[in-house]
Amino acid sequence: MRRTQAETIPLADALHRVPAAAVTAPHALPGFARSTVDGYAVRAADTYGVSDGLPGYLDVTGAVQMGSAPDVAVGPGTVVSMPTGGVLPPGADAVIMVEYTQRAMPGTIEVVRPVAPGDGVVRADEDAAAGAELVPAGRPLRAHDLGMLAAAGVTSVAVHARPVVTIFSTGDEVVPPDTAMLLPGQVRDASAIALAALVSESGGRPVQGGIVPDDPDALEAAMRLALTDSDVIVISAGSSVGARDGTSAAVGRLGEPGIWCHGLAIKPGKPTLLADCAGVPVIGLPGNPRSALVVFRLLGMPLVRRAGGCTCPPAEPVVHARLQRDLASAAGRLDVVQVRVHNGMATPIFGLSALLSVLTAADGYVLVPAEATGLDSGTEVEVTLYR
Amino acid sequence: MRRTQAETIPLADALHRVPAAAVTAPHALPGFARSTVDGYAVRAADTYGVSDGLPGYLDVTGAVQMGSAPDVAVGPGTVVSMPTGGVLPPGADAVIMVEYTQRAMPGTIEVVRPVAPGDGVVRADEDAAAGAELVPAGRPLRAHDLGMLAAAGVTSVAVHARPVVTIFSTGDEVVPPDTAMLLPGQVRDASAIALAALVSESGGRPVQGGIVPDDPDALEAAMRLALTDSDVIVISAGSSVGARDGTSAAVGRLGEPGIWCHGLAIKPGKPTLLADCAGVPVIGLPGNPRSALVVFRLLGMPLVRRAGGCTCPPAEPVVHARLQRDLASAAGRLDVVQVRVHNGMATPIFGLSALLSVLTAADGYVLVPAEATGLDSGTEVEVTLYR
Repeated sequence: MRRTQAETIPLADALHRVPAAAVTAPHALPGFARSTVDGYAVRAADTYGVSDGLPGYLDVTGAVQMGSAPDVAVGPGTVVSMPTGGVLPPGADAVIMVEYTQRAMPGTIEVVRPVAPGDGVVRADEDAAAGAELVPAGRPLRAHDLGMLAAAGVTSVAVHARPVVTIFSTGDEVVPPDTAMLLPGQVRDASAIALAALVSESGGRPVQGGIVPDDPDALEAAMRLALTDSDVIVISAGSSVGARDGTSAAVGRLGEPGIWCHGLAIKPGKPTLLADCAGVPVIGLPGNPRSALVVFRLLGMPLVRRAGGCTCPPAEPVVHARLQRDLASAAGRLDVVQVRVHNGMATPIFGLSALLSVLTAADGYVLVPAEATGLDSGTEVEVTLYR
Repeated sequence: MRRTQAETIPLADALHRVPAAAVTAPHALPGFARSTVDGYAVRAADTYGVSDGLPGYLDVTGAVQMGSAPDVAVGPGTVVSMPTGGVLPPGADAVIMVEYTQRAMPGTIEVVRPVAPGDGVVRADEDAAAGAELVPAGRPLRAHDLGMLAAAGVTSVAVHARPVVTIFSTGDEVVPPDTAMLLPGQVRDASAIALAALVSESGGRPVQGGIVPDDPDALEAAMRLALTDSDVIVISAGSSVGARDGTSAAVGRLGEPGIWCHGLAIKPGKPTLLADCAGVPVIGLPGNPRSALVVFRLLGMPLVRRAGGCTCPPAEPVVHARLQRDLASAAGRLDVVQVRVHNGMATPIFGLSALLSVLTAADGYVLVPAEATGLDSGTEVEVTLYR
């Protein structure tokens, strides 16, 4: 399958975008040895053996200012006052916390705890060595990844272009959502806007191809136009046998190698069609919006992610719950059961696959595997939660 | 705490936005009794008692077209041919699947299975009754919620405005991320861009307030300007005692009731400051980007969600795993431990709180509760995964 090309975008726009290549540190980070505490830069050896009963005395010969190079070095028997985050002065190998010191007289501190070399200090390359990988290719950028890149001075990043996903709805009965008054037998297009949202969630750029009548020639022409500029094509393919056959005919004429399969062992979602038309994956979804959305979550979203170069998809929220009642299921078919989750119990929501309300009432779904013939009430199930 | 005002936006832009009020169905859905199968509209009573051995014979008096009103009614002994999704004609109370019929002679079918009233039909109000709640207030809209609203002809929706979150960075050492060459002691601002990403993830609109020097007067002036147009203000407050005191002084002068608390029993994140300045929540975050991001996830993101009217936050992805080694923790303090997760094992990533690389190396985090003094290797822990 083709992946989208790389494009370079500003870091501020890069949340959840997919790096086209690993990004490495152009220089060591933080780039200088840095204090992690408020206190005094010191030669650790000068503190060996000190204690509450036997304090050491050290002369304060200067102070480091935030954001500036130290203008003084640390020598034997001397310390330099340090703010958290300040540059460790030459000669020092540790910073002793202010809490373990007190002013003995003007210009001299009393030290009651020994420090070891490196205490209170971040090494110059401790956050990243020069050339170290900051973020890998293929994993969507997380908030803190952006922070790490900013720290390294990387303010633009090469990411995979969002895959363009063209969405068609078919059906003589389907009218746009803004149709105020429906004529008898008309239904508004519910799938297109919901599919577009799922495309966005999976990192794609949805393009509305519009509503196409139940006519294979019209559908073929519309899809052929979209083929050039799309990375994936999605069709809500109509529910009747006639409409499904028409979709199949149109897709079949679009390009080689053509239809992979027509019909999946999944409920709802059986009439799903999968094809590769001249290198563009085409998904023909069932006409029922509920079935279409279930199938697109399971098959379409991973496909869009892959087209966009994502090799490490983000985790889905999942909870474990006990089934509140028996679930029947035919063997040899994956069942996708919508459930509500409350107090650790998952209550299946039954209803015809034509009903979108079954989805909107659900908190998530349970997969009943093909080899199962059903699940008993009380069985622990994994619920993937909607968000 | 104040909630943002409502604004009306197109449905296509409404994914994850938070409805300001419940949306109800303006009319019943689908609005007409609809076939769920390909077959024949029939009076169920005409099929009683039929079987393979004793088929019934019914006359086909017409055909329903998709998207049109039926032009024929079903009477005793007659059927009308139906596509999936077609309007049930007057007189019919069920649709028999084409699979349970066969053509006996031109214009007559043989029926071998009885149907009950309602079989093969979605009632006119089965997806939603007129006035039924389609989506509740306060729960971010999911893809299928958009589909349901589209089906009902709702093409714009009143949602809470995105809360404006102004982000300041403070520190004389902090320079913009696009600073190519750092002077000794300078660090690039890693927090602002990462915090902006977390604000976006929680439904807010981040506004970059810029970098303010370690000067309480300058910070107060900058924050005072932001107060009018912000729903939340966030400051990366500088790590040194001096910088923290300066932030605290500036915030304290901003408005009543002022500072709620300064210092939290959380690691990393102890120096966090929380305030309410003239009705605007202000979060002073630790200067270390790692600590700042940890605290903002736990406290800031829920605050931004609430400011945006969200009463039902989306579930976070969580996995259960076994600790790969002992975790020490002081009692009386919540510890946030970064972990990698692999093969069911959670491996803690140790490192100074100054290191952002500890976050970018992590898959998620484990909370060690304040009452625990540590967790033993092998303990099952809940890991919240980053995405």
